[in-house]
Formats: sequence, C-alpha cells, structure tokens
Amino acid sequence: MRILILGGDGYLGWPTAMRFSSRGHDVHVIDNYLRRRAHEEAGTSSLTPIGDDLASRVTSGQEVTGRTIGHTEGDLTEWETVESLFRDFRPEAVVHYGEMPSAPYSMKDRHHAVFTQTNNVVGTLNVLWAIRDLAPDCHLVKLGTMGEYGTPNIDIEEGYIQIVHNGRTDYLPFPKLPGSMYHLSKVHDSHNIHFATRVWGLRATDLNQGVVYGIQTDETRLDDRLLTRFDYDDVFGTALNRFCLQAVIGHPLTVYGKGGQTRGYLNIVDTLRCVELAVEHPAAAGEFRVFNQFTESFSVLDLAELVQKAGAEVGIEVTIGAVENPRVELEEHYYNPTHTKLLDLGLRPHLLSAELVESMFAVIGRFKERAITDHILPQDRWRPQA
Amino acid sequence: MRILILGGDGYLGWPTAMRFSSRGHDVHVIDNYLRRRAHEEAGTSSLTPIGDDLASRVTSGQEVTGRTIGHTEGDLTEWETVESLFRDFRPEAVVHYGEMPSAPYSMKDRHHAVFTQTNNVVGTLNVLWAIRDLAPDCHLVKLGTMGEYGTPNIDIEEGYIQIVHNGRTDYLPFPKLPGSMYHLSKVHDSHNIHFATRVWGLRATDLNQGVVYGIQTDETRLDDRLLTRFDYDDVFGTALNRFCLQAVIGHPLTVYGKGGQTRGYLNIVDTLRCVELAVEHPAAAGEFRVFNQFTESFSVLDLAELVQKAGAEVGIEVTIGAVENPRVELEEHYYNPTHTKLLDLGLRPHLLSAELVESMFAVIGRFKERAITDHILPQDRWRPQA
Repeated sequence: MRILILGGDGYLGWPTAMRFSSRGHDVHVIDNYLRRRAHEEAGTSSLTPIGDDLASRVTSGQEVTGRTIGHTEGDLTEWETVESLFRDFRPEAVVHYGEMPSAPYSMKDRHHAVFTQTNNVVGTLNVLWAIRDLAPDCHLVKLGTMGEYGTPNIDIEEGYIQIVHNGRTDYLPFPKLPGSMYHLSKVHDSHNIHFATRVWGLRATDLNQGVVYGIQTDETRLDDRLLTRFDYDDVFGTALNRFCLQAVIGHPLTVYGKGGQTRGYLNIVDTLRCVELAVEHPAAAGEFRVFNQFTESFSVLDLAELVQKAGAEVGIEVTIGAVENPRVELEEHYYNPTHTKLLDLGLRPHLLSAELVESMFAVIGRFKERAITDHILPQDRWRPQA
Repeated sequence: MRILILGGDGYLGWPTAMRFSSRGHDVHVIDNYLRRRAHEEAGTSSLTPIGDDLASRVTSGQEVTGRTIGHTEGDLTEWETVESLFRDFRPEAVVHYGEMPSAPYSMKDRHHAVFTQTNNVVGTLNVLWAIRDLAPDCHLVKLGTMGEYGTPNIDIEEGYIQIVHNGRTDYLPFPKLPGSMYHLSKVHDSHNIHFATRVWGLRATDLNQGVVYGIQTDETRLDDRLLTRFDYDDVFGTALNRFCLQAVIGHPLTVYGKGGQTRGYLNIVDTLRCVELAVEHPAAAGEFRVFNQFTESFSVLDLAELVQKAGAEVGIEVTIGAVENPRVELEEHYYNPTHTKLLDLGLRPHLLSAELVESMFAVIGRFKERAITDHILPQDRWRPQA
C-alpha cells in the first residue's frame, strides 16, 4: 500500500514510517519540523540524538534496512504543499500525526493557543479536501486523544454513545470535555472529520490515543541512527517518559497535585501496532470510526510508584516530589473508558511492567549526559497567576 | 451598562446596538465589513439601502434619536484591535455576532471553509483572552446556532443532557451533528467558550439561535436611514426572508428538496429581546449557559405555504418551486428541541402569522426595484458535482 505519514519526523511518526516500510509498504513522510523549532525556541531537545533532518534519517534508514522512504519538508497548512503531495504520491492510507501535540504549549498564552488551533484545524481541513478531491478512496487514520473526553462521571465509550431520552433513542457522538486548547483542537478536528465522512463519504478512523511511553521499537533497535526522539521536558515530555528520565538523573519525580489524575496509557510498540491494525482494516466509505487507543489506565501516582520500585530493583534511589498542579483538572475522579475495538482487531498489548521501566532506564542512561535539567519543572499554568 | 456589540454592522448587530442604546446603555459597535465585502465579490447586496459605513449609520442614529453609539472598524482576528477595544471601552457585556454567518459561503470550496473556521474560531479566542485578561467580570453573550445540534432522533435539550449510562449519571454537553463548515465553526466556538468558563471562570451565554426572519424593529421603523440590511440571495438569505422577496418579485419559492427540513425560527424583534434578557440576567462566574433561542418550528414547506397564503390575501399569486437540494441534510426527520429557558426569563414571543408576512411584503415592495434576480438559485453544493 501507498501510505502517507503526516508528521513523519515525530516521536511516533518516524517509527511508524519505518515499521510500514519494513513490512513492504510504499511509505512517504512529510514534516515541517514544528516540534524541532519549538524545542529550539525553548532551549530544550530530544534526549536521544536524532538525525538532523528527514533526508538524513531516510538515508540512515536506507543504509541500515535497504528500504527507501520518500520524504517532503512542508507545512500541512499550505494547500499547495498538500495538493502536490496527494497528486504525486496518491496515498491509499494517510496516517495523520501532523499536529502541534502539546497541551502546555497551547496554554502558554493567546498566541500559542491560536497557533495550536489554527495549525491543527487548518492542516486537517486541507487533508480532508485533498482526500475528497484527489484520493476519495483513501483511508484517513487520524491521531486524536483520550483527552478529548476529559473525565466525565460515566463510562467513556469509543466515540459514540447510545442515548435513550424521553422514550426515543439515538447513537450520537460522545460528549467532549477537553482540558486544554490543544485538546480542544483535537475535538474540533473530530467534528470536522466526522462531517467529511457524513457529507462526502470519506473513510476515517479517529484513534483517541492515551499517553504513550517507551523508547524502542523493532526498527529503532537496529541502529542508533534510527532512534526516535525522546522528550522529557515540561512542554513535550509525557508522564511516564518524564519520570524515567527524572529517576535516572536523580531528580524527584514531578507529580502534579495529588497525583490521582488517571489516564489511559500504552507502549509505543502498541501505538505502531494499533495504527497498523487500523490501516489493514480500513473504515468503510462514509464511516467515521473511533477507537480508544490505550491498553491500561494508571494514576500519575501509580506511575511514580512503579518507577520508584523499578529504580529500587536496579539500585537507583527515586524520590517522589510534589509540584503544584499547573493544570486545571480533577485530581480525584471516576475513569473507566472502554477500549475493546482494537483488541477485537487483534491487538495483543504490551503491558507496563518494572522490566519495561528498567529497559527505559538503560537507554536513558546511555544518553543521560544530554539531559537539559532546567526545563523539568512546569512553567505553563492553565490559569493566569495572581 | 457598557455593552460591546461585535458584528455591529450586520442584520442583527445594528438593530441590537440601536435597541440597547435606546434603553440608555452605553453601546460600542465593531465590524470589519466582512459581509459587505462578500456581497460585493458575489455581485449581491442588501435589499434595503443601508448607510455606507458604521460612521454614517451612527450619525443617522444620532440625528434621529439624539443618542450616540461608539464605533470601530476593525477585525476581531487581529489581537491589537481586540485588545485596545477592551482596554478603552471596558465592556460589562459583549454581544458577539461578529462571525461569518453563512453555511453556503463556508461550503463554496476549501478556501472559504478554511476562512470561515479560522475567522470565527480565532476571533472568538481573541475575545475570550480579552475578557480573561482585561475584563474578567464581563459577560459574553455569544450567538451560536440551533444548527450545531443537527437533527438527532431524540429531543434536543438546551446545551446539556443528563445521560444515565451503566448505572452512573452525568450532565454533559449535548452531542453535536453540525451540517456545514460554518455550523462546525460554531461548535468549535462552543467548546472553546465552555473551556474558558470551566478553566478561567468566565461568564458566558451561548444563544443557539434558530433562523431569524423579519425586517423591522422598533428602532428601524423610526427612519429609513436606520434600516437594517435584508439579504435574500442564495448565500446570505435565509428561508422565510428569501421566500417573501421571491413572492413580491414573482419568482417561484425556492424550496430545496422535499421541503420537510424542519428548523426553529424567530422574529428579529424576539432576537433583540432574547439578547436583552441574556444581558440583563448574566451568567454566573464559571457558568457556560446555553439557551435555545427560537419560538416556533416550521418545515420549509410550511413556510412556503404560509407565504403563498399571505400572498393570496393581498392579491399576489405565489407559486412554490422545487429546487434540487444543494445541501446534504435529512429532508424528513424528527425535530423537537426544548426552548424554555428564555421563556422562563420573560420572553413573550411574536409568533409567525400571515399578517407579519404581509407586513414584510409591504417593506419589500418599497425596495423591490433593488432586487438582484440572478442570485436567487443556490450555487454552492455540499457535495462536489459529478
């Protein structure tokens, strides 16, 4: 299959591209280095050293695997770029990671909020138009987030819920309570994509993904030149990844608030498998399919304690810190989201274990001299400070 | 009260400004003439002659009523404009009509869709930030649309619905099935505003308005120089207003498809009263209040038949045409939205009658020589044509 990966330079985009390529697919990646630029501006960086640009990463991939991945440096918000990409490559599936992915980034100030929503919404609208007019049979596999749902007091279903009301019944989009300007942008995308399936008959799968952890995939293990990026800073680092880095460098784990915030999590290797399952089993024409893409739920404190325990096993003393919560979110709440559709398609989860954490310690240890320690504490607050 | 009207040059914005001014409030309007420019590009115009710009309208208002309305020509998507407006005027209430309001316009092509969503979402984000940082106690009264809900198979509640699911209960945002890129932009706004109330404690009322009809309000009747615009073209004209114009000029009424499409409607004088009621009874800090703002439901065919009947009474022979539906929408469906919250606040509806239609005929008749007849049939199709 011809598979186009949007955001192919990212934490998930690059290993996804390598995986599809290694399976024999014809893969093309596009990225505008938005994440790299945001890191440069902030003075942060990936812990793992990654190639200077897509060209060098693709060349390394070729040298290691003998397989070629096509690449474009370009911005999805520019129609001419999207149009020529679709005309030239004629994708059969598009995996769309190509968005600003950070909640703290989106909450820095007005400018960052407007940028995040404009960038994500306009890029996705352009992709929808490109599919409609240039590749109508193409299946859009879009990365959403479990954060679109927030933490309602009922079980979260996969995208839709049957509502019985005053004696009548309908199966409707699940209500959304997103927790940041970034999460809102994903909710906007979901509504726009749903519309495109209803009105234009496009095929789309929205993967409402949990928080991803892990460093290595089958392909990144082949050679350090194929490593994916690993973020651990306050803006792009996610909970477990941050904690593992903090453990290795001897920083107290930055638990925000009470730590009872519970979310769905999954291993990066399961992300790749889920995306592959979605691509292998495309949505029908006119179908907007939503999968909740995570394998287990943990509270922030659960994760901190797991990292502490794994540290003890390998002789690292880990302390759990307490940081005033920069976000506005419930720190104790009900959380029970459904996540059976990917299991039904054949996902066999790699569950979180002390062994996995220890293996992350080992990789982090190899690169720990690269750690930038002055961007570990959160700086972006959801509410303006008094 | 200091009341800021965003989109104060529009069909509803201008009469709203005059009404608040006539009640003794300190009123300031802003508009960037987006609607006027869109008409100029299309070769269409308001049936009623309106002042050349806000300055001339405000001057006329002053001459007729002795009251002054402040005005700014400016674009809400430019932060500097919004910031200085809020700094200088320090509004206590903001009535936000300042968006691209047309579904057909938003469905013309990719460019118009992206423009509509960017314009509406960014403008509203700027307003939210301005309230947060410059006027945190200010009450935002935002015009949404009943079209955010679409036509689900259950009763539509006012913004939220209590959902009982697997033995647990929550009161959550009502699911949305918007029918155009424009309606989607309003759904995006609603989510963004809801977030701002939840996280920043802002006060907001979302008025999910039905289709407005009518020409005259208490203030526009004072002098023809105070008339509001009246659109009847394929892009900005709404159902009943279009039909009344078509009846007067002898054009068959353009019923799209089967005509069973049912929506909520209200008289323009009730719009002004609803907005006034919302402003007089502000939302609490942190509250995102949603009112369904319409007084009666009609199918398109109901309206066409009413116009035909009113025509017969005044000696105009009206024929009902059938036009292939340019939209993708259900032409027969369940429709039963709740609309009690504004009634509870004291709204006394002006219901639709043959007399009202006949009074519209009379005003339209005075200006019928201005009618542009080559933009009556719809040109923008929801699906690309084969």
